[in-house]
Amino acid sequence: LRHTNQLDSISHADRGMSLEQAVNESNQYYRARNKAVIHKKPTPIQIVDVSYPKRSAAVIREAYFQAASTTDYNGIYRGHYIDFDAKETTNKTSFPLANFHAHQIQHLRDCFQLGGICFALISFKPSNELFLLNGPDLFSAWDLQSQGGRKSIPKKQITQKGYALPYRFNPVIPYLDAVDKIIAAHKGEKNEF
Amino acid sequence: LRHTNQLDSISHADRGMSLEQAVNESNQYYRARNKAVIHKKPTPIQIVDVSYPKRSAAVIREAYFQAASTTDYNGIYRGHYIDFDAKETTNKTSFPLANFHAHQIQHLRDCFQLGGICFALISFKPSNELFLLNGPDLFSAWDLQSQGGRKSIPKKQITQKGYALPYRFNPVIPYLDAVDKIIAAHKGEKNEF
Ligand SMILES: [Mg+2]
Ligand SMILES: [Mg+2]
Repeated sequence: LRHTNQLDSISHADRGMSLEQAVNESNQYYRARNKAVIHKKPTPIQIVDVSYPKRSAAVIREAYFQAASTTDYNGIYRGHYIDFDAKETTNKTSFPLANFHAHQIQHLRDCFQLGGICFALISFKPSNELFLLNGPDLFSAWDLQSQGGRKSIPKKQITQKGYALPYRFNPVIPYLDAVDKIIAAHKGEKNEF
Repeated sequence: LRHTNQLDSISHADRGMSLEQAVNESNQYYRARNKAVIHKKPTPIQIVDVSYPKRSAAVIREAYFQAASTTDYNGIYRGHYIDFDAKETTNKTSFPLANFHAHQIQHLRDCFQLGGICFALISFKPSNELFLLNGPDLFSAWDLQSQGGRKSIPKKQITQKGYALPYRFNPVIPYLDAVDKIIAAHKGEKNEF
């Protein structure tokens, strides 16, 4: 049985969208309303061979996918640097940390240290549920791993510490509402951000 | 005759580096010292055909370069969202605005409106001189263009309004020194940023 929130909302999957498409659409929505400028970075590609046919566009003939050295998304919202990645799992009860590369966590941590708002969007595909997990909560789960802790974050923990993101029509994923809460919480702590 | 500053410094070109390489090296320098996390975005590529050979990496067999919808560089420094592009000209006395696409200026303007520090690094190749021109000064030159103004920014104006960036060894291009001045000037104006 899905709870009311889930019954009312139609997930990106229900709408035939990948998580990436849903995030991109949400970013376009925010961008069009001058709320935020957040983009997905292009996939890094190592180009080996390019041909230049006469009177037409250059054609890449041999290239390889490279590992990304950062997260997929960054930008600006309310004067804040925003940095995140969107991940999905087919697991029902936990999110496997193997979805992240160590250098992505390091990148989020470095940006957080410099004052950025850094997080993960985590989608549980079986239940169509989506959460924003803030950087510090992600980092502590990651660090416990190397201290003999578990290799995944229990969904229960994500439900408690993270922000549940309902699906909407506009934007599909209203994740900046959760970012507003992070900013408000931080202001409460420090009286500045 | 080049002035002292130029005699003492060795430009990226003198060192056999492209402007892009020099900016990337500077970013690596800042990154390694936890001063800033600023990356060049990968070139966007439209992939048409990929082959998946057995037991080896996927090979992109047909792909095309796409126009970038944003600037090349962004990241975080001292809690501020940073966004810029690096451009060079072989002109001696002015910087042609045609080096920018309208959507890049729009992107810089949107990020600036949301509280980011947005600018251009402008390299004059004949004299090996490099300047940081802050967003508002770039935008006003851009806007004058459509009001029948000139299609380039006189170097004299860039010298007056911009920040001259000396070449160094580490980092090659110390552009965050100029960003410090922008932050300080802004604090003076508003008593906050
Ligand atoms: Mg990713
Ligand atoms: Mg460029």
